[in-house]
Amino acid sequence: MARPGATDMLDSWNDGATKSVIVDFVARVTKTGGAGYVPLADRIATFDNDGTLWCEHPLQTQVFFLIDHVKDLAAKDSTLRERQPFKALLEHDTATLQTLGKQGVQELFFATHAGMTVEAFDRMAREWLSWAKHPKLRRPFTRCIYQPQVELLEYLHSNGFRTFIVSGGGVDFIRAFAEEVYGIPRERVVGSSGRLHYELQDGRPVLMKASELGSFDDREAKPANIGLHIGRRPLLVFGNSDGDLAMMRYAKAGDGARLALLLHHDDAEREAAYDRDFRLSPLAEALDKAEQYGITVVSMRRDWKAVFPD
Amino acid sequence: MARPGATDMLDSWNDGATKSVIVDFVARVTKTGGAGYVPLADRIATFDNDGTLWCEHPLQTQVFFLIDHVKDLAAKDSTLRERQPFKALLEHDTATLQTLGKQGVQELFFATHAGMTVEAFDRMAREWLSWAKHPKLRRPFTRCIYQPQVELLEYLHSNGFRTFIVSGGGVDFIRAFAEEVYGIPRERVVGSSGRLHYELQDGRPVLMKASELGSFDDREAKPANIGLHIGRRPLLVFGNSDGDLAMMRYAKAGDGARLALLLHHDDAEREAAYDRDFRLSPLAEALDKAEQYGITVVSMRRDWKAVFPD
Repeated sequence: MARPGATDMLDSWNDGATKSVIVDFVARVTKTGGAGYVPLADRIATFDNDGTLWCEHPLQTQVFFLIDHVKDLAAKDSTLRERQPFKALLEHDTATLQTLGKQGVQELFFATHAGMTVEAFDRMAREWLSWAKHPKLRRPFTRCIYQPQVELLEYLHSNGFRTFIVSGGGVDFIRAFAEEVYGIPRERVVGSSGRLHYELQDGRPVLMKASELGSFDDREAKPANIGLHIGRRPLLVFGNSDGDLAMMRYAKAGDGARLALLLHHDDAEREAAYDRDFRLSPLAEALDKAEQYGITVVSMRRDWKAVFPD
Repeated sequence: MARPGATDMLDSWNDGATKSVIVDFVARVTKTGGAGYVPLADRIATFDNDGTLWCEHPLQTQVFFLIDHVKDLAAKDSTLRERQPFKALLEHDTATLQTLGKQGVQELFFATHAGMTVEAFDRMAREWLSWAKHPKLRRPFTRCIYQPQVELLEYLHSNGFRTFIVSGGGVDFIRAFAEEVYGIPRERVVGSSGRLHYELQDGRPVLMKASELGSFDDREAKPANIGLHIGRRPLLVFGNSDGDLAMMRYAKAGDGARLALLLHHDDAEREAAYDRDFRLSPLAEALDKAEQYGITVVSMRRDWKAVFPD
């Protein structure tokens, strides 16, 4: 564990205003006896996942996973090839997929895993992650994480923060890699979820995934799920889309200093440049009102020395 | 923090078979290099609250809280005195209250807090806990906790376990005292919950309690909520009623050694003797099938040297 207060952990962040905002904030809330001191119990940070901790462009990783899963299903039931939205998935028809919207994709995701136990799903997700590669970045998805964010998580952990993922993505999918990749344990992942049913399978108690949506964890549902799962206003929030705006505003409205960070994907060269027009997760209002709401905009191009791990 | 493996932390447990089962289990799963070794990440223990960590007889603490809250409401709206179920609450009509059942009580509880922010509710609960006393035990409710369980929680923490409360009680009510009383942080409390709505109150983002039930965390819902909130099969489960049987069986069905403990209230002298006939939370099936399911029955009378803190 690094020396508390060490900032050389943020090696992949360029020196400048943004990095200073982060370092100054952490110094302020951790300084014993200082006016801004925050007890350990209250040092909660919530991070969006897709587009904040790892790449989500041109499609979220979960969609690539869904495509490959539907391929397997279509091998057993060829009628899927002609039925929407399966047809669009199998043909990588991004335009049609985007019309489903983020919630439609989630619902399809849960529907295709109905009848699996959570353990069987976990094995399937881990197996896929072990070989699948991002089509554009040509590296395993678990290496499409952002190196500056991995450093930031570790920096926060070393300063007594408990970090949580609060994502629109499926909670069980994120749990299949978050612990190994980000150091965030399974119980600190909040996400969209399908209902689980306790059942006996050959006499053995299991949790079975049902097709019914439990929670679509986006926009106003994010602070509501923070209330349910965490029970505290976060001290720090990091997001990248309008889906994160409500949890940012919720955090900022707490007492004392709070930090809300918004990653802007403005780096076509190293990753991608997108915001308003990315229909699966647009960034418009949060960018336009960042100043009004006291949100710090992080520019990938300007603020990150490196984007991905070596 | 105590020396790992120290058993003198369990001072309020009588030496004997039950204490040995606990100590041997913890020794087995924490012995580095041993056949039963369990990595830190998987050391999850879930505890029921009412009747397991603190007294629930003759009524759960939350019901006493509800009674006092309804008294306040009736002072503003006297028609409540003649309307059921408020009338039964105000008259401490236990027989009628028991006919509501555990879920009915929860629903009434959430209904009476609709329109409060989670923060206002937390203040109200803390204020009440600061003065209210158990009518029979004549001590603050936060001193109606079981001393052997407080020691067990600390013993588990010192052995690398992460403990969670998984309770039929309202999550926000439990969070108002769990951290100070049990050392269990707010995010490790899972309970029954009402829906929360993100709203602006005088321009400030808040989470508002709605009257709609989110989850009634009892019986089969307990393992389902463990799946949602924790994402791992517990290694150890402690309960005291049939409402805990599903999570006990779920834990026991995991790989390797697992421990399920069932507290039997058989101590009329020091606390209370009840099981099958306690309608708000009966214990029958779990007791009858304990041996079949490999559940260890803990006798309050026989296994606990002390019941409450001095």
